[in-house]
Amino acid sequence: MQHPDDTRVPEPQPGLVGLDWGTSSLRAYLLDGTGRVVDRRARPWGIQHLPAGGYAEAFQTVVGDWRDRWPETPVIAAGMVGSRTGWREVPYVECPADVGAIAAGILPFESECGLIHLVPGLLQSGSAPDVMRGEESQIIGALEREPALAADALVVLPGTHCKWARIHDSRVTGFTTYLTGEQFAMLRDHSIIGRPARDAVGGTDASRAAAFSRGVAAARASGAAGIAGKLFTTRSLFLCGELAAADTLDYLSGLLVGEELRSVLATLGGACPPCVLVGDPTLCSRYRDACAVFGIEGVRSLDETGPLGLWRIASAAGLLPGFCSPIVEPACRG
Amino acid sequence: MQHPDDTRVPEPQPGLVGLDWGTSSLRAYLLDGTGRVVDRRARPWGIQHLPAGGYAEAFQTVVGDWRDRWPETPVIAAGMVGSRTGWREVPYVECPADVGAIAAGILPFESECGLIHLVPGLLQSGSAPDVMRGEESQIIGALEREPALAADALVVLPGTHCKWARIHDSRVTGFTTYLTGEQFAMLRDHSIIGRPARDAVGGTDASRAAAFSRGVAAARASGAAGIAGKLFTTRSLFLCGELAAADTLDYLSGLLVGEELRSVLATLGGACPPCVLVGDPTLCSRYRDACAVFGIEGVRSLDETGPLGLWRIASAAGLLPGFCSPIVEPACRG
Repeated sequence: MQHPDDTRVPEPQPGLVGLDWGTSSLRAYLLDGTGRVVDRRARPWGIQHLPAGGYAEAFQTVVGDWRDRWPETPVIAAGMVGSRTGWREVPYVECPADVGAIAAGILPFESECGLIHLVPGLLQSGSAPDVMRGEESQIIGALEREPALAADALVVLPGTHCKWARIHDSRVTGFTTYLTGEQFAMLRDHSIIGRPARDAVGGTDASRAAAFSRGVAAARASGAAGIAGKLFTTRSLFLCGELAAADTLDYLSGLLVGEELRSVLATLGGACPPCVLVGDPTLCSRYRDACAVFGIEGVRSLDETGPLGLWRIASAAGLLPGFCSPIVEPACRG
Repeated sequence: MQHPDDTRVPEPQPGLVGLDWGTSSLRAYLLDGTGRVVDRRARPWGIQHLPAGGYAEAFQTVVGDWRDRWPETPVIAAGMVGSRTGWREVPYVECPADVGAIAAGILPFESECGLIHLVPGLLQSGSAPDVMRGEESQIIGALEREPALAADALVVLPGTHCKWARIHDSRVTGFTTYLTGEQFAMLRDHSIIGRPARDAVGGTDASRAAAFSRGVAAARASGAAGIAGKLFTTRSLFLCGELAAADTLDYLSGLLVGEELRSVLATLGGACPPCVLVGDPTLCSRYRDACAVFGIEGVRSLDETGPLGLWRIASAAGLLPGFCSPIVEPACRG
């Protein structure tokens, strides 16, 4: 008689455990040999919000069972976990950088929970230096999913700190950080211009969308002056009865996102290469609406490219010897 | 025998009690017949921070004895005390407006503490409306002290909400509010870019001044793009070891003040009329340094023009019939 366990289909060995470990959250992905996510977990345990036991406890709680079950499966981690204030610092890789350069910068870190491959962030040096940690993996994932972008593109990652990365010839040639999301939250929560919305009732999807577009249009119309002298109109339009209190924050959001676009286009001298948005679909949709106000149409969005990027970087680093790498060995592709 | 009291020199009747009653403080001035301040008081009792007894208690505590002693002396008040959330709302006067228009907009308010003449704020209508309350009195005071400005000038009032007022032919023809001071405080206290300075030690007057100038220069060099994509350099320059933690806030301040100047100059198309700074000398000095980075030299500062402005508005309103008015009756001067 067959033992019941014998009826189970042998479970395939996963290809990779990938961690996106940022300031405010820890996301873990179990990936198969082709880079597909087969399981996922998340906790609000960013490096600024660790549980009592610190990094080790967070790691053990979130992926300890995966590690116990598949001890041979490599673990890779990107984000602020590799920063100066993280678990272990991994030096930045300088732009221009392709996936090979990022993979070459991986730091194998023998933690108390076993070996973790820490992905380096990117550094743009020069008179206006800039840094990223974590977004490089999302960018690599976006290029993996949309190979046509590799020739020449702008990859935009909206968020608290929005990154605009210039891609040329499969390399990240440079990037700029915009504090748009953080500025919006600060103005909403701490400024006099955020006050009317705090007690506001009403407002519809349509009125809010119109207020957002109005803010974007005002930013565009500000020309070379920019919105520095327009931010206060969030309050004065309300005081003059020309903007409902419930719509003021959408107008403010439009001003700030519009200023970001205005600034990027001014830097580019007006010519915008193919542009793709990466991240939360709702936020990407706002940026797409703003692009349309600036006459930039057909911008697409990609969601959750980070896990695929981690897989691609691991592959380039030779961490997945038993599995094919779609870009390195295109013949393997489905 | 003479009564001892008879030996006292008869105390002259003061001309005016002037109140500058804003959001965060109440300042009171006793002015003589020529607009000179002969006594002053201040309490942190702005309209958002009133004592338990409200407006009446604040008023009584600060100027009750003046009022009891000289019941005939008129009382005038400017600032947020006349706003929708103030003691009594006084409608804005629309730009362009001269001292006569402001005086004509005064609301005589019969409060529980007696008659108070509430000075109206200014409104700039149009697609980018703007408002001020209190600054109009400082502007009128500046024009009274420097009559040469009345022909054509920019009067700049740095602060939490910096106002740039355009003066032409003795009228305020328009103005723009910049949130520079408020943005600085928010970024310092609530943003990741303010964090390094929180634990910083060291920094000298010279290093801080250099960091400020560097920020202003970066804003100027940003050209039409503006500083949206430069704010994060406050952090990345620190991370790259190119800016000391103790100097980061001065660099940030330079970026923000520089952006304000860049934006104003872009709006003006590069040509800047004679410019005067009005307000706190330390803050005005920073703006003067920033102007110098933009090649605008010879900008002067005026301190505490508000009381003289209140006196001038009261005079134009006919509240000082027993006293001469220097502008209306120049022969009385000096």
